[in-house]
Amino acid sequence: MNANPVLVEALRGTALESAHRGAVAIVDADGRTVLALGDTARAVFPRSAVKLLQALPLVASGAADALGLTDAELALACASHNGEPAHVATARGMLGKIGLDGEALECGAHWPSLDTAARALAAQGDAPVALHNNCSGKHAGFLCLACAMHGRDGLRAFTRGYAEPGHAVMREVTAALQAATDTDLAQTPVGTDGCSIPTYAIPLASLALAFARVATGQGLSDEHARAAQRLRRAIARAPFMVAGTGRFDTRVMEALGERVCCKVGAEGVYCATLPERGWGVAIKMDDGNTARAAEVVMAAVIEAALRLEGDAAALLRSLSDATLRNWRGTEVGRLRASNRLREALA
Amino acid sequence: MNANPVLVEALRGTALESAHRGAVAIVDADGRTVLALGDTARAVFPRSAVKLLQALPLVASGAADALGLTDAELALACASHNGEPAHVATARGMLGKIGLDGEALECGAHWPSLDTAARALAAQGDAPVALHNNCSGKHAGFLCLACAMHGRDGLRAFTRGYAEPGHAVMREVTAALQAATDTDLAQTPVGTDGCSIPTYAIPLASLALAFARVATGQGLSDEHARAAQRLRRAIARAPFMVAGTGRFDTRVMEALGERVCCKVGAEGVYCATLPERGWGVAIKMDDGNTARAAEVVMAAVIEAALRLEGDAAALLRSLSDATLRNWRGTEVGRLRASNRLREALA
Repeated sequence: MNANPVLVEALRGTALESAHRGAVAIVDADGRTVLALGDTARAVFPRSAVKLLQALPLVASGAADALGLTDAELALACASHNGEPAHVATARGMLGKIGLDGEALECGAHWPSLDTAARALAAQGDAPVALHNNCSGKHAGFLCLACAMHGRDGLRAFTRGYAEPGHAVMREVTAALQAATDTDLAQTPVGTDGCSIPTYAIPLASLALAFARVATGQGLSDEHARAAQRLRRAIARAPFMVAGTGRFDTRVMEALGERVCCKVGAEGVYCATLPERGWGVAIKMDDGNTARAAEVVMAAVIEAALRLEGDAAALLRSLSDATLRNWRGTEVGRLRASNRLREALA
Repeated sequence: MNANPVLVEALRGTALESAHRGAVAIVDADGRTVLALGDTARAVFPRSAVKLLQALPLVASGAADALGLTDAELALACASHNGEPAHVATARGMLGKIGLDGEALECGAHWPSLDTAARALAAQGDAPVALHNNCSGKHAGFLCLACAMHGRDGLRAFTRGYAEPGHAVMREVTAALQAATDTDLAQTPVGTDGCSIPTYAIPLASLALAFARVATGQGLSDEHARAAQRLRRAIARAPFMVAGTGRFDTRVMEALGERVCCKVGAEGVYCATLPERGWGVAIKMDDGNTARAAEVVMAAVIEAALRLEGDAAALLRSLSDATLRNWRGTEVGRLRASNRLREALA
């Protein structure tokens, strides 16, 4: 891997302590490059950053309408959630609409991502189940899609192995990803994601293209264009569901509504749609650091791309140039977008 | 910051997903370079990796003997511990020996670093205090040193502000660090550490030199040489205290005893002493990633430097070339030392 430019700097006092390298692609729906910083041709595993694309068949198939899925449920289908009680209840409710429960999920169990939620669960004497998995809403969405494809009779038998690449459900999901990104996923490296579904390596610029298409609908089928718009609106109306307490995606979309639809992925991936610019954004940090690096880059991108004022401007600046404090609350340093990144975005 | 070489690779399937760059210095007690990979002249904040050096005055002052500090207590004085009950009890016991309690600690409070310990605390309806801070043993050691410098009368008043650079206690600690590293700490950037004490930027090669001196005693005062040997032995006899359940330092020193004395630091720093080679090791990852990157490098260094067999060899290989599994336990990739690092160490 060639060294991409430094995009994020961690300072202790006034000295540079650590730095994060990465690449940023910003593309419009015609595929024109708005920004290519670093190696944007390299294929990266998008991980959870493409959940909205993976949820397109859920809406386009008619399943969402047939089941009366709410905005909160559609947002949860695109989420990497904190495992807070509202997330768990919403995932359970989605499964209930098709007569299934958490036992049908194939994502595995982990403690809620939010520490306070994990400790609250432990304090109740409970242990986590698959519903707490940050991907449980996405998986519940896959099962709702399965119901639309198969009907309810024998649904549990039909869905077994739904997370495998060759299952009919996952083939639908993969086809939507392939169409949106204009990438032949049969010819690219494939890995297994944290929640057990396949993840396909896709050039960063092609990921950005897909999210530009989500912004405008251009380049998508009519059904997928409408589905993309509906999912964006659902997320804007229920931003808590897509992440949760204290999380970047929730805070930014609570502040900006439909002006941004952004989604975090593991290993330093971030994607976003900026509808008013008609742009898609894709970020990959070389070192795989999401929370400390990709988020800072995304905040700087949003600041530069949109005309922000007031509280929204202050929020994004606090995320692109953050004060680091220690356990006593003493200011010990800064975490900030590099000059190289700011200049490229200017 | 110039790009250092890739030392650690994270693979998903067989494709490179993320990579960690960094520098490694291995030096002998004469200051001769054994290995300089990447920029080893750059000054880095050593953070918690130098706790053994910061504990030298505790022993050299006679405080450890006067208070009858045990191996477990001396190991805890050099620890970044998990906040498990045994760590908390040992820190409390150290403070009890000088008539103080957790209220005297100036490190701040945080939930135990070990998730299971944090959840167990929450399940009891308790909240964390300063004794749970991973640095509470180091701070308890500072207070024991204060007792040796001042006596017990008015100790609490004397110790107030002990974490400040100008306090008599911290000046002793800083002098020990300066002497061991041959670095003028008045002329180098200074930051505030997570536990509120100062951290001084020191060239990576000078950190390695200090730990070579810990191996042989050469270049240290007689008192510090004896103190270093005593601290190394205490850690080897009580490796649980220096970290805790599941932690790299504890597992490696449980397996290798006095053959390695290694210590993790925040922001991708790792230092070690290898007595049988007479070498000191210092590692800094550019991106500040400790658990996923610096540990892998340290494992590869230990493997290459020592002749390991049986279970110890298998343990270190599992740490330098690790299987990554997802929430269902499926193997999804590898985390491994890069060929560049292996070749440099060969």
